[in-house]
Amino acid sequence: MINTVNNIYTFLDLAGTFVFALSGAVAAKQKGLDIFGIFSIAFTVACGGGIIRDLCIGAVPPAGLTNWLYLVTVFAATIISIGFYRIVNILNHPVLLFDALGLSVFAVTGARKAIAFGHNYEVAILLGIVTAVGGGVIRDVLLARIPVILKKEIYASAAMAGAMIVVAGDYLGYPKETVSTIAIVFCFGLRFLGLHFHWNLPSFPDKGIKKDE
Amino acid sequence: MINTVNNIYTFLDLAGTFVFALSGAVAAKQKGLDIFGIFSIAFTVACGGGIIRDLCIGAVPPAGLTNWLYLVTVFAATIISIGFYRIVNILNHPVLLFDALGLSVFAVTGARKAIAFGHNYEVAILLGIVTAVGGGVIRDVLLARIPVILKKEIYASAAMAGAMIVVAGDYLGYPKETVSTIAIVFCFGLRFLGLHFHWNLPSFPDKGIKKDE
Amino acid sequence: MINTVNNIYTFLDLAGTFVFALSGAVAAKQKGLDIFGIFSIAFTVACGGGIIRDLCIGAVPPAGLTNWLYLVTVFAATIISIGFYRIVNILNHPVLLFDALGLSVFAVTGARKAIAFGHNYEVAILLGIVTAVGGGVIRDVLLARIPVILKKEIYASAAMAGAMIVVAGDYLGYPKETVSTIAIVFCFGLRFLGLHFHWNLPSFPDKGIKKDE
Repeated sequence: MINTVNNIYTFLDLAGTFVFALSGAVAAKQKGLDIFGIFSIAFTVACGGGIIRDLCIGAVPPAGLTNWLYLVTVFAATIISIGFYRIVNILNHPVLLFDALGLSVFAVTGARKAIAFGHNYEVAILLGIVTAVGGGVIRDVLLARIPVILKKEIYASAAMAGAMIVVAGDYLGYPKETVSTIAIVFCFGLRFLGLHFHWNLPSFPDKGIKKDE
Repeated sequence: MINTVNNIYTFLDLAGTFVFALSGAVAAKQKGLDIFGIFSIAFTVACGGGIIRDLCIGAVPPAGLTNWLYLVTVFAATIISIGFYRIVNILNHPVLLFDALGLSVFAVTGARKAIAFGHNYEVAILLGIVTAVGGGVIRDVLLARIPVILKKEIYASAAMAGAMIVVAGDYLGYPKETVSTIAIVFCFGLRFLGLHFHWNLPSFPDKGIKKDE
Repeated sequence: MINTVNNIYTFLDLAGTFVFALSGAVAAKQKGLDIFGIFSIAFTVACGGGIIRDLCIGAVPPAGLTNWLYLVTVFAATIISIGFYRIVNILNHPVLLFDALGLSVFAVTGARKAIAFGHNYEVAILLGIVTAVGGGVIRDVLLARIPVILKKEIYASAAMAGAMIVVAGDYLGYPKETVSTIAIVFCFGLRFLGLHFHWNLPSFPDKGIKKDE
């Protein structure tokens, strides 16, 4: 039973890595980067958030650099996004769903890992968010554009909700697996609804100031 | 007496955090980011420099992530910059003064912390600068523009001066409180005069090369 | 004999630092930054990759911040790039060669340091690449453009080749000095040939999508 749960976790973690790598590879390809650049951006999106988290909690070297499974997963995503670009584009909508799944899983595992290293709940929530959105922010910085997650439908806030559920469950002493599952489902649902109904957090445009998009 | 000094320090530190958060929130709002994006940029400006400093001296997790006072301060600055944008804009000049105060305080506390962790004077000076200007650099990177502090009136150089005074005082064994006060006043004065007289460090434009501003 | 080898290493390391700083200073000068900005960018290019590597392997504070030799080297490069800009420009081709040398040396020393800290081969290869190209990536991010190394002739891939030779040599138990020399020569040769023949890794442009260059 525990093993099944762990296997599911590992599977979800790699699935999240895969779809984040896919989104990075597609963006890099569209910018005309060479194959190494595409791979680098894909790796950064998939592992960047986790690497920052690990540096902040003192888990060196970061898991993204030591575990070859991540590297292989990113490599596969790069190859697929180049070789089957047309198909990946058609699958745009499913990819958004997988991206939402990656977001949820990373928010939960990020918060969980910070707690496991003995840090307080504020650290857990902040690093849950960083794990989930950090890679995407770095991708946009490398591609010289304002990080889209800072402007888009319920995204980082869904990650925050997921991390907060993990923290609340830990505080109340509820079983980890149940709490994590609830947190993932809630975060995923929030993001899915945000996408579906084009929910946006309020922004506050000025008259006469040109928006970037 | 010691307590008074400590209280003043804490107050200055939070005041610095507040005004840096304010400057970040205003910049983010002008770019049309949503409320979460505004908060994220505000937090990054206020705490980014300190987080890099803490990673470099091995103080994990970074204080900016563990101490809720920073989070609350940034939250307050975000709310105020949105709700009272008109007033914040009118207060532009006072904000520049507060920003200069934040710069001075962060340069001094950054250098002080590096010394307290047993590192050498070069590290103290470099990380004093990083603490003071790091957040602003990250803000500009996230907003996809060349960091303004790399181009503007005496700014990072004022932070360097402050950090060097701290180091000189430590080397000569002078009392910390006195040295820190002098360093803050000197750094603040330098920045204030730089602003007032539009002092700039020399740059070296080529003919025929378009400058960015 | 050992001393000679060590001296050669130190010389190569500082030579790499110098040319990387030069490339950063020239780019910053062309963007109209002030002298402090030019120095900051030069320092970042020269030491940024090594600082990220040191954070990832837990070597805090990073060598780039503690060793004043780097600072002096960067300072010299800044002064030279400003005072002798015309000459530096004429020497553009030799500078590219030095840059290739810096790349090779940093890739090898980066991989070597990761192994010396007891980390696995994947970490060594990845951080060899990061040490070699990290500074250039940060430079381009600060100057708000897509990192050129993600688009250019065999560059990061040459660094990867150098790091892989170090790892292979370590695995087979070959003497370090020999392996390092071979790795540097191979990486340098690969980069030199890439430059000379304008080798590029494949990219995959779409019709109708404007490339950035």
